Amino acid sequence: MAKVTGLVCVKCARRYGAAEHLVCPHCGLEGILDVEYDYNEMRASLARSPLKSRSEGSIWRYADMLPTAGLGQRSLRVGWTPLYHFPRLGKAIGHDRLYIKDDTLNPSASLKDRASAVAVAMAVDKGAGGIACASTGNAASSLAVISASVGLKSYIFVPDTIPKPKLYQLGACAGRVFRVAGTYEDAFGLATSAVEKWGWDNRNCAINPYLVEGKKTCSLEIYEQLGYRVPDWVVVPVGDGCIISGQAKAFKELKTIGETARVPRMLAVQADGARPIVDAFLSKGDVMPVRASTLADSIRVGEPRNWRKALRAIRESGGSALSVTDDEIIQAMLFLGKNAGIFAEPAGAAGFAGLLKALRAGLIAKDDVAVVIVTGSGLKDPESLALHVQICDVDSDLRSVEKCL
Amino acid sequence: MAKVTGLVCVKCARRYGAAEHLVCPHCGLEGILDVEYDYNEMRASLARSPLKSRSEGSIWRYADMLPTAGLGQRSLRVGWTPLYHFPRLGKAIGHDRLYIKDDTLNPSASLKDRASAVAVAMAVDKGAGGIACASTGNAASSLAVISASVGLKSYIFVPDTIPKPKLYQLGACAGRVFRVAGTYEDAFGLATSAVEKWGWDNRNCAINPYLVEGKKTCSLEIYEQLGYRVPDWVVVPVGDGCIISGQAKAFKELKTIGETARVPRMLAVQADGARPIVDAFLSKGDVMPVRASTLADSIRVGEPRNWRKALRAIRESGGSALSVTDDEIIQAMLFLGKNAGIFAEPAGAAGFAGLLKALRAGLIAKDDVAVVIVTGSGLKDPESLALHVQICDVDSDLRSVEKCL
Repeated sequence: MAKVTGLVCVKCARRYGAAEHLVCPHCGLEGILDVEYDYNEMRASLARSPLKSRSEGSIWRYADMLPTAGLGQRSLRVGWTPLYHFPRLGKAIGHDRLYIKDDTLNPSASLKDRASAVAVAMAVDKGAGGIACASTGNAASSLAVISASVGLKSYIFVPDTIPKPKLYQLGACAGRVFRVAGTYEDAFGLATSAVEKWGWDNRNCAINPYLVEGKKTCSLEIYEQLGYRVPDWVVVPVGDGCIISGQAKAFKELKTIGETARVPRMLAVQADGARPIVDAFLSKGDVMPVRASTLADSIRVGEPRNWRKALRAIRESGGSALSVTDDEIIQAMLFLGKNAGIFAEPAGAAGFAGLLKALRAGLIAKDDVAVVIVTGSGLKDPESLALHVQICDVDSDLRSVEKCL
Repeated sequence: MAKVTGLVCVKCARRYGAAEHLVCPHCGLEGILDVEYDYNEMRASLARSPLKSRSEGSIWRYADMLPTAGLGQRSLRVGWTPLYHFPRLGKAIGHDRLYIKDDTLNPSASLKDRASAVAVAMAVDKGAGGIACASTGNAASSLAVISASVGLKSYIFVPDTIPKPKLYQLGACAGRVFRVAGTYEDAFGLATSAVEKWGWDNRNCAINPYLVEGKKTCSLEIYEQLGYRVPDWVVVPVGDGCIISGQAKAFKELKTIGETARVPRMLAVQADGARPIVDAFLSKGDVMPVRASTLADSIRVGEPRNWRKALRAIRESGGSALSVTDDEIIQAMLFLGKNAGIFAEPAGAAGFAGLLKALRAGLIAKDDVAVVIVTGSGLKDPESLALHVQICDVDSDLRSVEKCL
């Protein structure tokens, strides 16, 4: 594991020791912390054991860049998901330097497993009696499965509007599922109180600064899988802003320790109906909360909690931000399915929709190497395609088949 | 790729050349063929390149034991799924030599991807214009995604009773989805006629003998992941009988080429309401069709098409067969979820339910190394748990939470 030297508030820049606080006590929930390491030690560790020499096929391959030694073989296999380069796909969109990072191939079928694995490992390290989160989606199922595999009890708080399939999945794997009469905010508030009262660990991403550390492993893999090259662009769907923050931090740290000479530009993709970070980027100001509306539930976030880290990730990298319509998201889902066999949930396909838009606008140039991260599986939300798939209704005879060919 | 020397009918034992027939022309659909290789050449190939020396993290690691050189990096990553040994899980069931092969971590979230990858590779090898199958489940989604990734058009025939989420998944990825007014048998018949008329390749597992070859890669991995050891038991849920046939063939071939000295015993697990292969095994006779009824739809098969291969796999290995109740399957789903974080579909958990029964009966002994294959993900059928998950309904205050702890 890497040596954490301190936690820095992204709002007021105050600095704290590793185990002092989860959020900045001066800034409250807005004072999200950023993890800093002893980068000299990290550099020395990589010199002794270069990335190329490593064989572990999971996120623990990067234990010496993470705040925990990890769970190793004791838990579900997280990470080392494939990076695809399908020439056919590149030809279809007129951009042959396209790579797809398929993070649907994680235990709970989303990138969130990377964050949950780090959170659970740290909870196990310190002997926590349980770990909690409020979520209706990927964070919850991810925490439930990783915790279960190491015997840590998970406490999941969901609003009573949660779709049934997600509830059943949680029911199968979580330690306890609390269905709260009320909204997501009610569930979040109750989870926060429960964590204080019973001393469980807190896996709410924007609160727990270590989750971004897990997320950064996705880009460490991208760097390796590209043959130890830095892409020109990394394209990421953005809701709360945690995933894009993790990707930027990975490349920043690779540069800090001298492994690479530059960082890629980050392209943040939001939905037209939930684009507070895009608006803040364009206005060069702070994020203003909006009323969010999009079919892509995993990025349906009107008040992004980690916007400071996200905006910094975009700005510092010379990146950009744009939004796409729900229809463009649906078209991206179908295109990825039909041309790459990757079944993404709407938020998972939003990055690809954003890439297409950026190509059309000339923002991403012809010879730029672009990596699009597909963050979650369509198996979690197949109903989103209900009105958009083409099905041929036929009788039991070949003539009706022929008409559809 | 391995050199196919011939195809042998499992019913009449007639022998054919590699590309002559898909099924035995004398025995019709009952005359399923078995693929034989030049085992001297295979042995020489493994001597030149021992398994331990290989780095490819997919089924193409075993290309020289397969009838095709494979798709390599051109397609989705199939196989090299994790083999878990969680001491906690072993303790919970009183059997610490338990291993779980988690085949939910394939692109379409089931073991069937292994078979589809081989079928698609062979179709590509010979320049097929398309590939078809009739299915309501894992075989269809698997064929759709693997085909899409290489630009081969898939034609999927489904009965109109197909659950909506599965239809949408297919709609997202398949070349064409035909919803047939009628039963599964109607869809199967129409697919067969369409294949003949338009010359597409046929991916119906019990017809295409090469699919079992893909399935065998699961056990090749088990052997390697156990540290080049042969387990005592491999436990497999059984419907048509193709998966268990593939596992037995893998170990048989490893022995044939001198890599191992013995084979594991195969334990076939069926549902109480669909146990024609168990009955045939116990009566030492042939399979008699039954009317199938179980919540585990992927093994809800009353007339298994590949029963001869399956029975041979069990008998030749000194194995056994048993069935479990639907309630035992549900309990196994919840146990795997809560204790290992593995979310299996009912059929996927049936093997684990069978293991528990075999342990209770003393069929599997205390010091036997047992591997249970989890064949498919619960994300494909979360509704099966609707009546069985425990959810705590709470208000927004801690007292109601406390009552549930």
